Amino acid sequence: GADILPNANGTAPGIYVPPRLNGRSNCAVFLLPGPPRELYPMFHAEVAPRLRALSGVEKVNGALVLKFTGIGESDFHHGVDQRLAEVPGLEYGYCAHMGEVDLRLIGDVSVIEVARKITLDEFEPFLISDDGASMEKTIVRMFRQRGMKLATAESCTGGLIANRITNVPGSSEVFTHGYVTYANEAKIAMLGVSAADIGLHGAVSEVVARQMAEGALRESGACIAVSVTGIAGPGGGSDDKPVGTAWCAVAMKGGETTAHKFFHPRARKDFKLSVSQSALDAVRRRVKAGC
Amino acid sequence: GADILPNANGTAPGIYVPPRLNGRSNCAVFLLPGPPRELYPMFHAEVAPRLRALSGVEKVNGALVLKFTGIGESDFHHGVDQRLAEVPGLEYGYCAHMGEVDLRLIGDVSVIEVARKITLDEFEPFLISDDGASMEKTIVRMFRQRGMKLATAESCTGGLIANRITNVPGSSEVFTHGYVTYANEAKIAMLGVSAADIGLHGAVSEVVARQMAEGALRESGACIAVSVTGIAGPGGGSDDKPVGTAWCAVAMKGGETTAHKFFHPRARKDFKLSVSQSALDAVRRRVKAGC
Repeated sequence: GADILPNANGTAPGIYVPPRLNGRSNCAVFLLPGPPRELYPMFHAEVAPRLRALSGVEKVNGALVLKFTGIGESDFHHGVDQRLAEVPGLEYGYCAHMGEVDLRLIGDVSVIEVARKITLDEFEPFLISDDGASMEKTIVRMFRQRGMKLATAESCTGGLIANRITNVPGSSEVFTHGYVTYANEAKIAMLGVSAADIGLHGAVSEVVARQMAEGALRESGACIAVSVTGIAGPGGGSDDKPVGTAWCAVAMKGGETTAHKFFHPRARKDFKLSVSQSALDAVRRRVKAGC
Repeated sequence: GADILPNANGTAPGIYVPPRLNGRSNCAVFLLPGPPRELYPMFHAEVAPRLRALSGVEKVNGALVLKFTGIGESDFHHGVDQRLAEVPGLEYGYCAHMGEVDLRLIGDVSVIEVARKITLDEFEPFLISDDGASMEKTIVRMFRQRGMKLATAESCTGGLIANRITNVPGSSEVFTHGYVTYANEAKIAMLGVSAADIGLHGAVSEVVARQMAEGALRESGACIAVSVTGIAGPGGGSDDKPVGTAWCAVAMKGGETTAHKFFHPRARKDFKLSVSQSALDAVRRRVKAGC
């Protein structure tokens, strides 16, 4: 009396044993594969509809995930959290990741819309997406909608920005050239950065970040180029430029180059992730502002 | 009566309440921070020594992690597993990740050495490391020991190989130039790939992979360059070259360029990870063979 649940992402199917209302047991039993990439699709396709039917629930509360960067969970506790707590019928919660805070809103459509407005009144500039899309997915979507191309020039992130962008299906429409210029000679040869300026200002400097972004723009023919250069550590820091320091620049065709200084004093991988997030956010804000 | 456990990686210290041997309770209570990057160092620095002292255990069994790639866990069940099971005093277990199988050996030093020999007799060519080091850490170590430099030319992995290498502290000594040539024009402009050959053979071809690696070698001045070009999907596949197909080449100064075809028909991120692992393994084998 069991049903087979098809598995489109692996070899092991799931099994569903429907409840037996014979007085002995009314449990519904689902046996599901362990790997998340097999489990999640099967849950949504096979389990959730059966549970919904069994429970007799027609209407399911909506859920919305707002993703923010540049603010922390604590920023919500200076007013917004209080106002959200007062919305009748709203469930909500925070999840803080490296470089990102997610706010999950649960309730019916009108309740979610009220909560969304309360939040965006305060934090709209920090919003990555209001549909759960990651930063990289948001960037790819923005560039596709505008028919724009992006180039990357990375020193301290070592290819992470390009890697994040190319994790998004369809990114080949917007991303064409990535320069991972880890050594000074690479910055000079691949992006035309001035050796004299590296000597004068150091590789981690506003001047070099600007030249990297402008070099990537020129070499790639993209509409926008983003650069990062920083000190990932554990070695290489100084009093002047401690580990965690990074400069970023955003260059665009027919526009001015902007530069941004970040300070993310974190372990190496977390530093790379934080810098990549801040740099992508600088791109997002620039594109959003109409360039 | 509680001790504070210092936290070098965050703001919240840990707390240790020693056991009270007054007849009411002999539990040792540790309160530890949740974030793994705070928890693990505190566990090793503060908790493990206290537990060891409390338990009176002097000698702790050794543990060794052997990492393999290019073979699956099932390959161990054609003989090696049986021989390991017969080693007295050995505990062992497998952990399969994407592109990697870890074998963990636990026991005293001589027992571990016996188990290590049994395993390597069969699978030495597939060994990434015998000290738990990741593929990228192993590669950086090999290159540092030999004073060699590596360059990367990536299409389908989109910067992931460079990103993995630069996750390793000290990688700036061995990695200088990374080319993320996602578009054909980037392959042509950045690496000197022949437009005619792209037209004739396609971007995902042995010819283009070889030209990418040789271009990266020439442009960067590195000792070894590795290239990958493939079809990550979900779109872009054909009968001839289905999604999951990738070509890799390893070029070296004063040596021949070798080419390798991979087939990893997996979801996009898993495809990228698998291809990066296979490509880094091609580099590892080449360097290990004395180039």
